[in-house]
Amino acid sequence: MNNSNPVCKLLGIKYPIIQGGMAWISGGGLVGAVSAAGGLGVIGSGSMTADLLRHHIRKARSITDRPFAVNVPMMYHRTEETINIMEEEGVKIIITSAGNPAAFTSSLKERGFIVMHVVSSVRQAIKAAQSGVDAVIAEGFEAGGHNGKQETTTMVLVPAVAAAVDIPVIAAGGIASGEAMAAAMALGAKAVQIGSLFIAADESSAHEAFVDAVLAADEGDTMLTLKELSPVRLLKGQFYDQVQEAYKNHATVEELRELLGRGRAREGMLCGNLDKGELEVGQVCMMMKKRMPAGEMIKELIEQYNSTLDRMKGMGV
Amino acid sequence: MNNSNPVCKLLGIKYPIIQGGMAWISGGGLVGAVSAAGGLGVIGSGSMTADLLRHHIRKARSITDRPFAVNVPMMYHRTEETINIMEEEGVKIIITSAGNPAAFTSSLKERGFIVMHVVSSVRQAIKAAQSGVDAVIAEGFEAGGHNGKQETTTMVLVPAVAAAVDIPVIAAGGIASGEAMAAAMALGAKAVQIGSLFIAADESSAHEAFVDAVLAADEGDTMLTLKELSPVRLLKGQFYDQVQEAYKNHATVEELRELLGRGRAREGMLCGNLDKGELEVGQVCMMMKKRMPAGEMIKELIEQYNSTLDRMKGMGV
Repeated sequence: MNNSNPVCKLLGIKYPIIQGGMAWISGGGLVGAVSAAGGLGVIGSGSMTADLLRHHIRKARSITDRPFAVNVPMMYHRTEETINIMEEEGVKIIITSAGNPAAFTSSLKERGFIVMHVVSSVRQAIKAAQSGVDAVIAEGFEAGGHNGKQETTTMVLVPAVAAAVDIPVIAAGGIASGEAMAAAMALGAKAVQIGSLFIAADESSAHEAFVDAVLAADEGDTMLTLKELSPVRLLKGQFYDQVQEAYKNHATVEELRELLGRGRAREGMLCGNLDKGELEVGQVCMMMKKRMPAGEMIKELIEQYNSTLDRMKGMGV
Repeated sequence: MNNSNPVCKLLGIKYPIIQGGMAWISGGGLVGAVSAAGGLGVIGSGSMTADLLRHHIRKARSITDRPFAVNVPMMYHRTEETINIMEEEGVKIIITSAGNPAAFTSSLKERGFIVMHVVSSVRQAIKAAQSGVDAVIAEGFEAGGHNGKQETTTMVLVPAVAAAVDIPVIAAGGIASGEAMAAAMALGAKAVQIGSLFIAADESSAHEAFVDAVLAADEGDTMLTLKELSPVRLLKGQFYDQVQEAYKNHATVEELRELLGRGRAREGMLCGNLDKGELEVGQVCMMMKKRMPAGEMIKELIEQYNSTLDRMKGMGV
């Protein structure tokens, strides 16, 4: 454990790296591997039934006795059940996303959780801090999956949030290297959350075909779309093309919702149906080139981060 | 002059800060002030007749004998005239934007210019490097004014470009503080280009009403729009609303072009007609709070930059 870093101290971890909780991607295997390597593994519970969540918590615990967390999108029906299972299984760290932190944070704190909330704006960050969360995760426009309406990028969002709240800020969006991690720290973050990179971890649950598509992606191959429903960053493909076609045909919000339907994320990311699936990944996938064990990813991130700090020592003016 | 930094060495300047050339904003007064303070002032020639450009070059030179540059959008009719005037007036540094660098770079190099080209993608950066430019300015999605179709943010674009070319990379987009400058350096940039911040410099030609609007802007108040013509980041306002209304009414590209018309940038930024005008500024305006002389801005940037480097010395893990 690294006591000089407030996020490491808060969470009881060695490196200030949080693996982004991703539905269909980050189960017990990935989470255990990240935490064993000194980061914070995060189970993406959004996609899980109660039994499945319990299974993944136990799987992570079978790999490591270090802390890990569960990400809980707070707009689902089964939120209460999810939190009960976390309690029963002794998982102490919760990352909340969506929903209104004023409605649930004090109850979570009373139940003994360490709470971090994902935000995409300064306004949300202030609200979360006032609700009593322990840290905020500020996620920029370049991040994969669901995102904010303001389209504020990591470069602008992180220093703005850091200036607005007194709790630690964790930067997310566009980070898949130690260089970007150092950049986030320069901007005022105390830690980083890294999602997309771990899609290509050997231990991720992503379908092989989805990982191949992510590794083959070039610049401009992800786009933030479906802004009328809930903005989401997707890899371009057949479903994305259908959405663009719908826009051309002046689709209503209702028609877009119907086109999206249900189960597309599972279809694409877990089952590898790239045509029908919703393929959530961040812009930074253009920089990702190969599969690797999650533990090696963490090791490489830390090496790059430390050598970036070394390089910058000589850059004073 | 700072010989340990390749961009400072290339340009003969003290600090690795380039002021973004902005039509209607950066005339001789601002440019002279920035260069006198150790950065590189850049005249935004896009809006200027030949006589006006000559006037602004002479004005900058009356303020400082240090180097400054002219930004030339290479799709205008009067490009050749602009370059002739630069030659006659002894301005040696040209920043080219738009157009195809393969078509003009070797001729500019033969005429003795130092050439830097603005890019918004890795593909453009590689093309510029192959054409023989001395450096590229990699401008992310969050930047004000005209921008790329891929929507790649500074956080992702800068390291991708730095990995792809052997010439120095200058980061632009989302940078208005020494913290962001340090972040850009961590990402692999050798210098930064800063635009929006200098709108609020005492020496800028921006209309007072436009500066007030920029300083009052909050998160989400700028948006990239008119993507069917040429994507441009604007401050929201009456013209922006009209564009959104046109989209709702399924406007054609031709109708959008007609709505845009001519002279809106001048109208808004120089004349202060905020309703009719096109108000170009970057996302980072949400962090800008006050007017200041350009020289003090540079001083503050450097102080923040150096103290960020100091802070990061203790952040190894």
